[in-house]
Amino acid sequence: MEFIDLDKTASYAKLLNHALREYSFDYAKLDAGRVARCLIPAGGGLMYSWAAKAVDEPEIKLLQALADEQDLIGKYRMLLDGEYMNTGEHRRVLHHLLRGRLGKPVIHQGKDLEQFYSGELERVAAFADRVSGGELRGGSGKPFSAAVQIGIGGSDLGPRALYLALENWAIASGRKNMDAAFISNVDPDDGAKVVSSLDLERTLFILVSKSGTTQETLANELFVRDRLKKAGLDPAKHLVAITSETSPLARNPAYLDSFYMDDFIGGRYSSSSPAGGVILSLAFGSRSFREFLDGAHEADKLALESRVTENASLLAALIGVWERNLMGYTATAALPYSQALSRFPAHLQQLDMESNGKRVNRDGRPIAYATGPLVFGEPGTNGQHSFYQLLHQGTDTVPLEFIGFLESQRGEDIEAEGSTSQTKLKANLAAQIVAFARGRKLDHSQENFTREFPGGRPSSLIYGKKAEPRSLGALLAHFENKVMFQGFLWNINSFDQEGVQLGKELTKKALASGSRGSSGDSALDAYLKLLGIQEES
Amino acid sequence: MEFIDLDKTASYAKLLNHALREYSFDYAKLDAGRVARCLIPAGGGLMYSWAAKAVDEPEIKLLQALADEQDLIGKYRMLLDGEYMNTGEHRRVLHHLLRGRLGKPVIHQGKDLEQFYSGELERVAAFADRVSGGELRGGSGKPFSAAVQIGIGGSDLGPRALYLALENWAIASGRKNMDAAFISNVDPDDGAKVVSSLDLERTLFILVSKSGTTQETLANELFVRDRLKKAGLDPAKHLVAITSETSPLARNPAYLDSFYMDDFIGGRYSSSSPAGGVILSLAFGSRSFREFLDGAHEADKLALESRVTENASLLAALIGVWERNLMGYTATAALPYSQALSRFPAHLQQLDMESNGKRVNRDGRPIAYATGPLVFGEPGTNGQHSFYQLLHQGTDTVPLEFIGFLESQRGEDIEAEGSTSQTKLKANLAAQIVAFARGRKLDHSQENFTREFPGGRPSSLIYGKKAEPRSLGALLAHFENKVMFQGFLWNINSFDQEGVQLGKELTKKALASGSRGSSGDSALDAYLKLLGIQEES
Repeated sequence: MEFIDLDKTASYAKLLNHALREYSFDYAKLDAGRVARCLIPAGGGLMYSWAAKAVDEPEIKLLQALADEQDLIGKYRMLLDGEYMNTGEHRRVLHHLLRGRLGKPVIHQGKDLEQFYSGELERVAAFADRVSGGELRGGSGKPFSAAVQIGIGGSDLGPRALYLALENWAIASGRKNMDAAFISNVDPDDGAKVVSSLDLERTLFILVSKSGTTQETLANELFVRDRLKKAGLDPAKHLVAITSETSPLARNPAYLDSFYMDDFIGGRYSSSSPAGGVILSLAFGSRSFREFLDGAHEADKLALESRVTENASLLAALIGVWERNLMGYTATAALPYSQALSRFPAHLQQLDMESNGKRVNRDGRPIAYATGPLVFGEPGTNGQHSFYQLLHQGTDTVPLEFIGFLESQRGEDIEAEGSTSQTKLKANLAAQIVAFARGRKLDHSQENFTREFPGGRPSSLIYGKKAEPRSLGALLAHFENKVMFQGFLWNINSFDQEGVQLGKELTKKALASGSRGSSGDSALDAYLKLLGIQEES
Repeated sequence: MEFIDLDKTASYAKLLNHALREYSFDYAKLDAGRVARCLIPAGGGLMYSWAAKAVDEPEIKLLQALADEQDLIGKYRMLLDGEYMNTGEHRRVLHHLLRGRLGKPVIHQGKDLEQFYSGELERVAAFADRVSGGELRGGSGKPFSAAVQIGIGGSDLGPRALYLALENWAIASGRKNMDAAFISNVDPDDGAKVVSSLDLERTLFILVSKSGTTQETLANELFVRDRLKKAGLDPAKHLVAITSETSPLARNPAYLDSFYMDDFIGGRYSSSSPAGGVILSLAFGSRSFREFLDGAHEADKLALESRVTENASLLAALIGVWERNLMGYTATAALPYSQALSRFPAHLQQLDMESNGKRVNRDGRPIAYATGPLVFGEPGTNGQHSFYQLLHQGTDTVPLEFIGFLESQRGEDIEAEGSTSQTKLKANLAAQIVAFARGRKLDHSQENFTREFPGGRPSSLIYGKKAEPRSLGALLAHFENKVMFQGFLWNINSFDQEGVQLGKELTKKALASGSRGSSGDSALDAYLKLLGIQEES
């Protein structure tokens, strides 16, 4: 397999030439026929519509050639087969295997990792069933009624986004077993607020740290243990650990139970592992989590298709590269028309920016083209009353990724002025796609262009019947696979995060310097003094 | 007063020449002396540190000349004096007056608006006192224990961000009177979830819509009224309205009481009006809201200073223009090291992007330079484990605005490995500033640059003793005034939002078309069919 920087490929040269000399796209093309034509299944009942993206046959043909030249599907197969695709850290990348095997068996140091992962997920299911059945109880003998995840980054954002995404669905479908809450920030006010709202006797804490050394998470664990002790409860009966088998937290009697993953599951890809599984299974039942994994597996399977117009995540990746590298757009907005997905953009932000915010290729050599865009978003219709002004009339073009569902989760709705709220929500979504694409031109004789909309804002739409475990599994996997394919296109390693290290090192230095000391760095000392950590000399 | 497009000023030509030919900035300059020198009070006890921004004496001199040439302080004074600075809508811009008068008396149609605003805010305070004193009660005679705001955009983001920002502080200082919640999205699951968690007998709803015609808000009001009726409660005893005196909601017996603002208070600037005042006064007492206003007023006063190195919001605005127009950076990250500010970036996102995401000047004529950047952010330390990878090692430079506090709000902390969590939080903040500024260069003989950090990521820090009403008022006003000064620099109207209109119009069309009809737009119809609003023909 060849790994080539994007700008060394023949297809990229052709794309560049095409973009500079020939490309034009008229959004007047956006009609019923195009909407019907540009539609692909994305798994879990989802459909991906790219009709309002500014690419057509000539661009698709060139993007297909790029996909073929970079052998994106071949690289995806390598990853599925357990190759060491996380080059810098020399690790395999196996989050797909959590959802089901699509490649060769992966044997690592004599262990079949499919069996290891599925075994742990079966243990998670059995554990959740014992808790919800009242068999496993807290230190004072009361059944657990709340689960609180202590974790940060990938141990927080994905599981939290999914919990919020499914809560209303679970209530409406009778699958809500337990409330969940999350403590992530090292800011002591975060943990204090969450803990003060809990009935500790009935609370199960889930500590998530693969390495077992995450500073924020360990500080919050200590805080929680202290509170449990002060409440007369045995922390070992209220805490479970999700970690790697080599971490200090593993097989530790200080925890009620432990569930394991390994270095081949990156934090931001760990929602499908026990890091997402324990809390989601406790909250909504193990069956719901299984459905989530099945939906993700469906999307993973579809991602094997080599024709770009039949592979939603692959096409989304290629269009993203077209927008980033050929059109020069620097950001992407994730816009779910679903309040359930209120924190899903925050998860996508990590997934995308931490995976592809890189400036060296997979061998560590500098590259000369743009990689991962800035990703942000809030749910519509809220965003419409906030930052959409800039999206419509700002001086930069921001490509958009809309998400929508036909039905609400709770089905509690009301009709006003002839339509339900769910219909209004969807009408807004449809209207925005068209408004962003076409805009509204004013006559050149006008003197005031305040009410002119340039249009030409490309968007995609991924939608399904309802936000429920299977569709959300597919939605998550769609974006994971999109990010993966983009990493292959850019020839970067999407699976490490060396960019977090320098801050960690300087923080250690700062903390080691103490209140009277010096960190050996005059600027750092100066800021530590401003913030009252070091005393003024 | 002259209003000149940025690229028509002599100072901008000089800045451009300087940026292209002479400018260089060495982050090695960042030392204790520079940190001490580049520090300005920002009101409410806050300090603004710009030491880690990549500007020095030559740039400051040119930016001062630009500020003088564009007469930014003169324009601010015009605004304070009640001039019609919202040109397109021909409106005054008077949110500063809510906090205290700094200009001439503003008499509108014979009415002194200072008296009008302060009179309404006094009525708000009296109302909140009567509710918390148990004098005003719900329909079944029980005292109110929760307040729920129904509003979207500026009627939601600012008040919600401030409620979350102050909740822990209020608990710790004995000022928490009432819980608050918010319903904003037209997605029916939003309202259904909030309402299902409430004891309706004890809940007071606050409807916020200046025009009284906001689609999402009216749909949610109807839902809430329906639920109140079904619970056997009289909605008129559980709802107050915040609106303009000319709206259909005004002086309407369907509400327990009504509080007024006018067209001179923009939605995204309305946190200082009854739109923020009612819910914050109910939740934390009217005294807390008064302190918030006082803090904002302090910042407003400081913003009158014409020397740029003595005026925090002015300098922040100028540095922002330097970064956007001279350096070409397209985004800004707002990074509060305070869990209390978890939604403050979402408010800043609206404030900035809706105000300055414009492509015509204040007279409606097209401009040829970049205006408002994309604004996003999440609290540190969470962001460190998410998108900071891209900020440190991505291919684009994103300027950063850090926010921090010396003390936590609740003071419930724990020491681990020799430091409290609050100290860890601040050490992380200090470390990040230095890491972003200086990076870490590797030897050129290296073959692998995965662990190289380019540095050169400029940041500012605004910090105070604690997140409490006065400091948060100043923080809010600091950013409002920064955005205002940038609007003056770009010669745009920061106070309208015409960019939201086209989507609204198309939504109306879509809803009017009904399930069997046609909107008259083939693409819109096609999306309405995908989403199940129109039937397939």
